[in-house]
This record gives sequence, C-alpha cells and structure tokens, in this order.
Amino acid sequence: MILSAETLPAVKFDERGLVPVVAQGEDGTVLMLAWANREALLASLQGGRATYWSRSRKQLWRKGDTSGNTQVLLEARYDCDGDAVLYRVRQAGPACHEGKRSCFD
Amino acid sequence: MILSAETLPAVKFDERGLVPVVAQGEDGTVLMLAWANREALLASLQGGRATYWSRSRKQLWRKGDTSGNTQVLLEARYDCDGDAVLYRVRQAGPACHEGKRSCFD
Repeated sequence: MILSAETLPAVKFDERGLVPVVAQGEDGTVLMLAWANREALLASLQGGRATYWSRSRKQLWRKGDTSGNTQVLLEARYDCDGDAVLYRVRQAGPACHEGKRSCFD
Repeated sequence: MILSAETLPAVKFDERGLVPVVAQGEDGTVLMLAWANREALLASLQGGRATYWSRSRKQLWRKGDTSGNTQVLLEARYDCDGDAVLYRVRQAGPACHEGKRSCFD
C-alpha cells in the first residue's frame, strides 16, 4: 500500500516509536535496513529524500547529508500489518557506509 | 555478507533476541519483513526453508507449513552492522496472508 501523509496513520510504530524501513534501489537491490519514526516518514514524504531515525545518534538522519550518498524517494509503501515500510529510492553512490553498494554485499 | 552456521555469531539480536529479516523473491521483489531469532536462522540455514519467529504466536514459523506458500531459501545475508538479515527465496504462491504477491502490494 502506498504511504502518504493520508495513509500514515496506518503505520504502527513499536514501543520506541520506530518502524523498520527497507530501502530498495531502482534495479531491485535491497540496499539497507534502517529505522524511522513518524517525523522521519513525514520528512521523507514531504522532502522527497529518504530520511530515517538514527538510533545511535538519536536524531533524524536524512541519508546523504554528510556522505553525499543521497536517496531520492521514488515511492514509499507500508505492509499489510502496517509494521514495516519500504522506500524505493534512486541511490547516489554506495548506500553502505563501508563503501559497498548495499549493506548486504 | 553470506550468513552461514559459521558467520551466525556476527548477527546481533535485539533485547528480545530477534533480528529483522527481509525476504526478497528471485526477481528482486521485496516480499515481506518478518523477524527471526537464532533458532529460526539456524533452521533456515539447515533446513533450506525460510523460517521466522512468529511474534504473535511466539513460536518458530516455517513459512508455508500451514498455507503451502513456502519459501525455499536460496541465500541468506546479513548487513554491515549485523543487525538485519536478507533471505533470498523462491516463493511458492503469494507471500502475503492476504493473498497478494508481496506484503507491500
């Protein structure tokens, strides 16, 4: 199901206020799994750039602001249980902080 | 990185003993996100069928045992932080309990 400002109430956040987010590249590659709170989802939808919640830094994390490896958000979806989100993105450079295309490589 | 019985110690489980697992079909489709504990990962690796931990039923969940919609495990990977797993699977029938191919459809 398409995630939008209207469908956002369908997303169920965990006890920390977070939901897992899978980022998938245009060619289908699963690039990474990260986490988002409500604010991060809204920022992604409104700003057009994939945004997460950094659990280590405890702050919003708009992917690529530091590294330049941005993710343009092409589409956001949520699953049948409302407890997982899928970002389809146009990835600039590697997604992984270790320089690999995908964090699973 | 390839997940195997040897690399399993690299996986970090959360305070519930769980790690999120993304299941991806052969054509790249992200089918679902579910959870696994150590036992579920081992069962997947050893039995060749994608196995999860059902948080609602609180038991191992070998996908398809009830529905017939099995997932043959083609490859398992873990990410750079060791806190997410990717199953690449050959999905029989729909992955979603609502009858859709993907839980994100």
